[in-house]
Amino acid sequence: MLSEFDLIKQYFVRPTSGRATLGIGDDCALLTPSPGMQTAISSDMLVEGRHFFAGEDAQRLGHKSLAVNLSDLAAMGARPVAFTLALALPAAERAWLEGFSRGLFALADAHGCELIGGDTTKGPLNICITVFGEVAPGRALRRSAARPGDDIWVSGTLGDARLALAGYLGELTLPADAQAAAGTRMHTPTPRVALGVMLAERGLAHAAIDISDGLVGDLGHILEKSHAGATLNADALPAGPVLATQPLALRRAFTAAGGDDYEICFTAPAANREAILAAGAECGTPVTRIGRIEAKAGLRWTDADGAPLTLELSSFDHFTN
Amino acid sequence: MLSEFDLIKQYFVRPTSGRATLGIGDDCALLTPSPGMQTAISSDMLVEGRHFFAGEDAQRLGHKSLAVNLSDLAAMGARPVAFTLALALPAAERAWLEGFSRGLFALADAHGCELIGGDTTKGPLNICITVFGEVAPGRALRRSAARPGDDIWVSGTLGDARLALAGYLGELTLPADAQAAAGTRMHTPTPRVALGVMLAERGLAHAAIDISDGLVGDLGHILEKSHAGATLNADALPAGPVLATQPLALRRAFTAAGGDDYEICFTAPAANREAILAAGAECGTPVTRIGRIEAKAGLRWTDADGAPLTLELSSFDHFTN
Repeated sequence: MLSEFDLIKQYFVRPTSGRATLGIGDDCALLTPSPGMQTAISSDMLVEGRHFFAGEDAQRLGHKSLAVNLSDLAAMGARPVAFTLALALPAAERAWLEGFSRGLFALADAHGCELIGGDTTKGPLNICITVFGEVAPGRALRRSAARPGDDIWVSGTLGDARLALAGYLGELTLPADAQAAAGTRMHTPTPRVALGVMLAERGLAHAAIDISDGLVGDLGHILEKSHAGATLNADALPAGPVLATQPLALRRAFTAAGGDDYEICFTAPAANREAILAAGAECGTPVTRIGRIEAKAGLRWTDADGAPLTLELSSFDHFTN
Repeated sequence: MLSEFDLIKQYFVRPTSGRATLGIGDDCALLTPSPGMQTAISSDMLVEGRHFFAGEDAQRLGHKSLAVNLSDLAAMGARPVAFTLALALPAAERAWLEGFSRGLFALADAHGCELIGGDTTKGPLNICITVFGEVAPGRALRRSAARPGDDIWVSGTLGDARLALAGYLGELTLPADAQAAAGTRMHTPTPRVALGVMLAERGLAHAAIDISDGLVGDLGHILEKSHAGATLNADALPAGPVLATQPLALRRAFTAAGGDDYEICFTAPAANREAILAAGAECGTPVTRIGRIEAKAGLRWTDADGAPLTLELSSFDHFTN
């Protein structure tokens, strides 16, 4: 029987020592902040049957658990430094722990983000990661910083994760290869860390948010906090490669209010357009201009020709859905 | 129906602004570290049916969820600064949320520890708090720092929480008032923050750990990390006021390997005895000398007269219990 301490030692303690002065194995971890930098902190909890299906592949789950947290750092423009992992498991199964830790550390290593502590316990499967990043004072991309006249941008593509979910739920039927391709976006999202850090460090963007509950809902937080409104071009929203082959109404619905995208929506002065496109190219993350921040409250839509459009969409809420 | 955002706004966002540059309501919280200080970080996950009974009083649970984390800061000698809260709830019930947030914030306010962010989701009841404190470089009380010849100390009293559990589980029967008194220790532990901070800032102690899984198991971590052994005086272990009225064998068993005590066990040079007693008096936390660190590996016991004693005890493990 694998004990709690053996479990931690075998699957989560690693020989390499990173930024942490003191990592796993004491009452607290100790981090030494870089002089003059602020610490950005985000915490996400993933629950079986809610954020992922029961029986989800452990390696993908390890990736996604950290990815959704790194995505929050990306949306703030903060460089990842470290994270803690609290894990409730129904049982200590070696195959699951091996897969989970492999997926987790592959992504952590790619971002130089060190596991410095946490907790393990028996219980219904629940994964809670708290991530720490660094950002220079005044550089963080806040939800409240959008200004009328700003362009609205989105990274990467939208909607393939929602399309995959629709397939799994039987809302529609996709060919097997299309389902698999869309599923990759749902199971192993790519946090846009390099882009977010460039936007912040180069002072290119005003506000940003990561798109986890759907573009409309998440952009809505920027509008609310910035006391502003927006017009979006429904046909400019970049659909994922699988969604792009689907009918127009589905494309519009799932790009606008899909969820689980983990792209960044950000606003920026029109004067920065070239520099933003260059930053996207430099880090290999496409960026697309999708609309404009306006002083008038509310969200308005147009089609590709600028004609007004009515879209009925809603975002995801954990307690009313 | 209470939405996720209303829930956060009504029960967890507070008007007062504290240390955080940016608190709840963005992708990340932003903390500005005090210049030259290290950040101490600890994360604990509490699962219904595992760390507390189903149907546990929400206010007590709010207190305990933060208390166990503050206890980790105390054992490091770090001053509390802020925390994040990730919460999975079966449903968004107003009465529960009111009670939980009341218990949580009463303790948070008492320690100047600010809620800066987190997550809420639907799911089996699970509370994950990550706490942040500050400690000067070189001052943290590490598990690895015990030295042969050190006195071993414990704060407060031990065993009443375990005695309460025994009563709840029907392992024994206590008078109702005794059960209630012991239950208070189990449900609303007192983190020894002021004592831990004094020990660290005044350089009085070498190693420390908080006692959550039982003295023997937790002291064992100090011995392992410090490559040392110890002799403990079984009759010096300070029993809680309810346990103190119980038979000797039970007193020894529950003080030595009870669990859920959230006292601090620490080691210190004999030269600091007077200063340690003075620090305990100053912060209103009794401290008791219970044994000595030795170069020889292993844990040995004596009785009050110094005669060798054999105690068969075990500590708690989440995956083998």
